[in-house]
Amino acid sequence: MNRPACSQLFPENFAPVCQLPQSPGAPPKNCIPELRRCVEQLGFVGCNLSPDPSGGYWKDPPLTDRSFYPLYEELVRLDVPAMVHVSSSCNPCFHGTGAHYINGDTTAFMQFLTSDLFKDFPTLRFVIPHGGGAVPYHWGRYRGLALDQKKQTVEEMMKNIFFDTCVYHGPGVEFLTQIVPIDNILFGSEMIGAVRGKDPLTGEYFDDTKRYVDGAKLTSQARNQIFEGNARRVYPRLDARLRKQGK
Amino acid sequence: MNRPACSQLFPENFAPVCQLPQSPGAPPKNCIPELRRCVEQLGFVGCNLSPDPSGGYWKDPPLTDRSFYPLYEELVRLDVPAMVHVSSSCNPCFHGTGAHYINGDTTAFMQFLTSDLFKDFPTLRFVIPHGGGAVPYHWGRYRGLALDQKKQTVEEMMKNIFFDTCVYHGPGVEFLTQIVPIDNILFGSEMIGAVRGKDPLTGEYFDDTKRYVDGAKLTSQARNQIFEGNARRVYPRLDARLRKQGK
Repeated sequence: MNRPACSQLFPENFAPVCQLPQSPGAPPKNCIPELRRCVEQLGFVGCNLSPDPSGGYWKDPPLTDRSFYPLYEELVRLDVPAMVHVSSSCNPCFHGTGAHYINGDTTAFMQFLTSDLFKDFPTLRFVIPHGGGAVPYHWGRYRGLALDQKKQTVEEMMKNIFFDTCVYHGPGVEFLTQIVPIDNILFGSEMIGAVRGKDPLTGEYFDDTKRYVDGAKLTSQARNQIFEGNARRVYPRLDARLRKQGK
Repeated sequence: MNRPACSQLFPENFAPVCQLPQSPGAPPKNCIPELRRCVEQLGFVGCNLSPDPSGGYWKDPPLTDRSFYPLYEELVRLDVPAMVHVSSSCNPCFHGTGAHYINGDTTAFMQFLTSDLFKDFPTLRFVIPHGGGAVPYHWGRYRGLALDQKKQTVEEMMKNIFFDTCVYHGPGVEFLTQIVPIDNILFGSEMIGAVRGKDPLTGEYFDDTKRYVDGAKLTSQARNQIFEGNARRVYPRLDARLRKQGK
């Protein structure tokens, strides 16, 4: 029985992105047929890519390994970005949402930084969730590491890497918008986020991430970019879908 | 031949902390004799504790595992804190200073948060380097996760956990001092840090971490706490050593 998907029930509110059938030890190119099916047949606008299919054991090669190149060729051909997000942690060292998620973000950024990936795929685009893990807070470290290796600058990487706003407090989101170029920040909501409760200091849900963006010191143009403009640029198939709806 | 240590050559500038002989799969209690020797015989004021002796494979139990308890009893008896810092990464997924270091900090904080460790050892103290990894940037996430589990609050953890200032840019250090209680921030210098070069925007070395603290908006009392007062409180044996020098 085919039940309608969320994006079919509420096509004005949701545009779908797909999971890929990654598996520990399996070559990433195995994911290509599913990516094509979701994008070309079902109208999905992006995909998720896990940097650690082993679930906290980090046994597979980094995202910059040549084994990923056939998948990246397809992402470029379809012109869809990948969100780089791990799955659950099976490793007792790593709490899922409190450690593994954030570590995955930081790890992926550093893999990209030390690679030639964006020379090989100048239009490949990745969205790193949770405000980029530890990256904006350690922006000087990453700028410095990039300058030391003389391969690419962090500023150059901003053609290919974007961050969402899933940082659960006002000062964190404010900081993100002060450090990372506005063009590289995409609003991220949390349907069911890492934290279920309300902040006793504000009486509001921790994972109500829109409030933090609303409260940040931003020009109305910057706010529009974060809420809409950047997503339409980074996800061209979302833009096409919205234009079809007259938006 | 016994060569003089840095702390013997320059006793007014350096106080030693020790490495522990941790090894993958070896019980942490094996480290107790070396800890005792360094602190009681050689006058060391603290130690380093790695959350991942496997070097990026995270094969050992979390720092909150009962196997660490004999070592923690000794840390408490000697009244010395442990800095929680990983060693090199042997895992190609993790760049050492750009990913593994920062991930280790974030991971350890989350292990502490989900444990009863500070109920069992109310005076045990850990210093988390690199400004706490991703923790201050995601302070709302950690406050919320702690509140959800109803075990301890992040504010309560501040009796036991401290962060250094090794964050390589002014806004990052400023942010740290705005988010984390001043009493929990200890100045950290970098003898040879993660970044070797100078920032072309300022002409100064990225790892000259004192400049960032000097430049932060702080009262003179807060600055004194960060540069000296907190270290003397967290490391009582450092305080005793300084008082012996008439400081």
